Amino acid sequence: MAQSYFAEGISGEATFSMYVREYPPDRGYLVAAGVDDALDCLEALSFDADSIDYLRSTGIFTTDFLYSLRDFRFTGSVRAIPEGSLFFTDEPVLEITGPIIAAQLAETIVMNQVQYQTLLATKSARCVQAAQGRPIADFAARRTHGTEASLKMARASYMAGFGATSNVLAARRYGIPPTGTMAHSYVTSFDAEIDAFRAYSRMFPDRSILLLDTYDTVNGAHAAVKVAREMEADGQRLTGVRLDSGDFDALSRQVRRILDDAGLDYVRLVASGGLDEYRIESLVTAGAPIDMFGVGTRVGVSADAPSCDMVYKMVSYDVRPVMKLSEGKESLPGAKQVFRRFDRQGMMSGDVISLEAETGPPGEPLLAPAMRDGRRTTPPSSIGDARQRVADGLSWLPEEHRRLRQPNHFPVSISEDLERLESQIRGRLTAALSL
Amino acid sequence: MAQSYFAEGISGEATFSMYVREYPPDRGYLVAAGVDDALDCLEALSFDADSIDYLRSTGIFTTDFLYSLRDFRFTGSVRAIPEGSLFFTDEPVLEITGPIIAAQLAETIVMNQVQYQTLLATKSARCVQAAQGRPIADFAARRTHGTEASLKMARASYMAGFGATSNVLAARRYGIPPTGTMAHSYVTSFDAEIDAFRAYSRMFPDRSILLLDTYDTVNGAHAAVKVAREMEADGQRLTGVRLDSGDFDALSRQVRRILDDAGLDYVRLVASGGLDEYRIESLVTAGAPIDMFGVGTRVGVSADAPSCDMVYKMVSYDVRPVMKLSEGKESLPGAKQVFRRFDRQGMMSGDVISLEAETGPPGEPLLAPAMRDGRRTTPPSSIGDARQRVADGLSWLPEEHRRLRQPNHFPVSISEDLERLESQIRGRLTAALSL
Repeated sequence: MAQSYFAEGISGEATFSMYVREYPPDRGYLVAAGVDDALDCLEALSFDADSIDYLRSTGIFTTDFLYSLRDFRFTGSVRAIPEGSLFFTDEPVLEITGPIIAAQLAETIVMNQVQYQTLLATKSARCVQAAQGRPIADFAARRTHGTEASLKMARASYMAGFGATSNVLAARRYGIPPTGTMAHSYVTSFDAEIDAFRAYSRMFPDRSILLLDTYDTVNGAHAAVKVAREMEADGQRLTGVRLDSGDFDALSRQVRRILDDAGLDYVRLVASGGLDEYRIESLVTAGAPIDMFGVGTRVGVSADAPSCDMVYKMVSYDVRPVMKLSEGKESLPGAKQVFRRFDRQGMMSGDVISLEAETGPPGEPLLAPAMRDGRRTTPPSSIGDARQRVADGLSWLPEEHRRLRQPNHFPVSISEDLERLESQIRGRLTAALSL
Repeated sequence: MAQSYFAEGISGEATFSMYVREYPPDRGYLVAAGVDDALDCLEALSFDADSIDYLRSTGIFTTDFLYSLRDFRFTGSVRAIPEGSLFFTDEPVLEITGPIIAAQLAETIVMNQVQYQTLLATKSARCVQAAQGRPIADFAARRTHGTEASLKMARASYMAGFGATSNVLAARRYGIPPTGTMAHSYVTSFDAEIDAFRAYSRMFPDRSILLLDTYDTVNGAHAAVKVAREMEADGQRLTGVRLDSGDFDALSRQVRRILDDAGLDYVRLVASGGLDEYRIESLVTAGAPIDMFGVGTRVGVSADAPSCDMVYKMVSYDVRPVMKLSEGKESLPGAKQVFRRFDRQGMMSGDVISLEAETGPPGEPLLAPAMRDGRRTTPPSSIGDARQRVADGLSWLPEEHRRLRQPNHFPVSISEDLERLESQIRGRLTAALSL
């Protein structure tokens, strides 16, 4: 496409809008994530000599076009919703305006980064809601789609309110509290389970969480009690025990009773293994005495929604608003803004999607300038700021849109000006196509 | 764990076995992928000064242990199933034997790389089966979980038998044929659809595939016919047209008829958008005249199985076979080999999981030495070899295990020696636990 634009002298300014067409199952909101990474990628976008040589070797490209790539930089402007903000279907997460080749080449990387990170942040935020204040740790690194995804999962889940990650590189890179725990293999490497428990608590007297289910959870709990008593004799306190298989509701009550009967009410119960927002919610609702959750697989791949219907559509070219009419996949024309309104209690009451130039709709504009001429105009969000935005967003979003199953759609309307433009262009296009 | 092993002087040799406990939905086989990347990661595993400084700053680690990390290298041995081989549940994809700290530290990265790449290769192989010889291109880069995953998806899908990728970096890196196509935005950047078609085929007269559905697929087909005729006047031939929305079965027939009625029987039909093995199968079975498929989202995230039950379990420590008994998550003790048997027609008839040392079972051993003392003993598989292995595996696997829905489980049995060892250790463990 870029080569054709180049050959045809098509070099006007285009605006592309990126948004989600439909909610993934049971989602009532989305948490913007990956925008800052997308901007980093755009700042770095260029073609080195080896890349140009490779492109030449394919035989697909003209010498003139390849020559033009030598100095290619992304020179567009970006307006984006800040990292960690809640957004809804049809609302642009970001809009890119620039020479059409640059804006087009941005598509794949921007879509790639924002889509999956948004899904991970959204899934994580739902777990945080479900846990009702109980801390959650990210244990997903083994299951994410690659190491890059493992880092972004740690970051997205911390933004969403998790308390720690077992991904030590991510902890270091993003300033997230690191956490660790013992594996079954640790236990099986000792002759007896209790020897493993003793060794671990000897090493980490102030942060020891013992894994109970290598052989049998209830047996493991009795061994943990023994070790906790030995620790007490040394003036130490066992931090916790972990369940990793079986019926968490029943086992957590059994293990809690065993601990409490031994006077170990301070020992915390951690559960991990196959958890997601639904399972956490049902455990919390049932009153299972679990103090902390470790989540991995199901959240780290956003198991019930590993992709979503996020799209990147041209909405204007050379000052002319454009749209597509493909069945069920229509786009709204023109560069846009989203205005968010709040009621008198400070709760979010509705968003309006308007044309960018409109100042009419009341409310707080969501899209802010982030990049101009290919350079950031604002520094990336700190992870702490993004985390605060998620927390604020969740506290401002009414329960009916936030609940984990079949949430009501948050009201998003289209401004009159945008509606008028849409019907005008649709009319023109369908007339031209004589449909 | 590593620090505790270090402090306790636990430094014996451990063997860990990585395998899948249960098939993802409707899978009857798995395609090994990511093994070579996992080995690369192990060769590179080390702690630089900055990393050690970071670990120190957490306050969790002792000076002695941190000091020991300075010279840490992965010094284990690895036996693995070659990239592209078919394997089944309970069969080790790889086994790592080494000092327990090294073998334990390998877990996360090895699990991470092999699991998702295996899922992507498996999902892709199923698409290849469904397409019954029609070429498939990888269009997934926008939807994978990160850029690393996009590269691995291109590689895994090419191994599985795809013909090309739209991911140009992957094409370059792995030697895969690159492919491209126009987007809706290309069409909307022109005043009229037909102008876009003309410009594109002017640029790529010998590889032009026109996207028909920006406004209306049937209208688009008529415009494509006009352009194809103009090309014929110049002695050129339009390569193809692409459907990207709507009812592919009905539309492909309509469009095929429009093309054929215009004498354009050589113009090929490409379909893309929401495709996976199931949709490809139903289109092919229905006889939809589609010549080529582009797959993205659903395959690039292995949508119906974005994770699987792959585990990394210690099976022996210090010459002593070990196992865990956790409810529903039992492991088999001891280092292993897998023997594959073929019938007289050359079809796969059954696998036997045995102890490593066994030579008894007839058949071809699958696990081969890949690394010794932390260095590869064999070069990584070429992508071509891996691709051949997938093709061979699929042609040797009886249809009942290969079919896309509810395949019969391929027969995998346990050797007598392994069975004996398992029941012996289970007996010893349960006695010790007085269960």
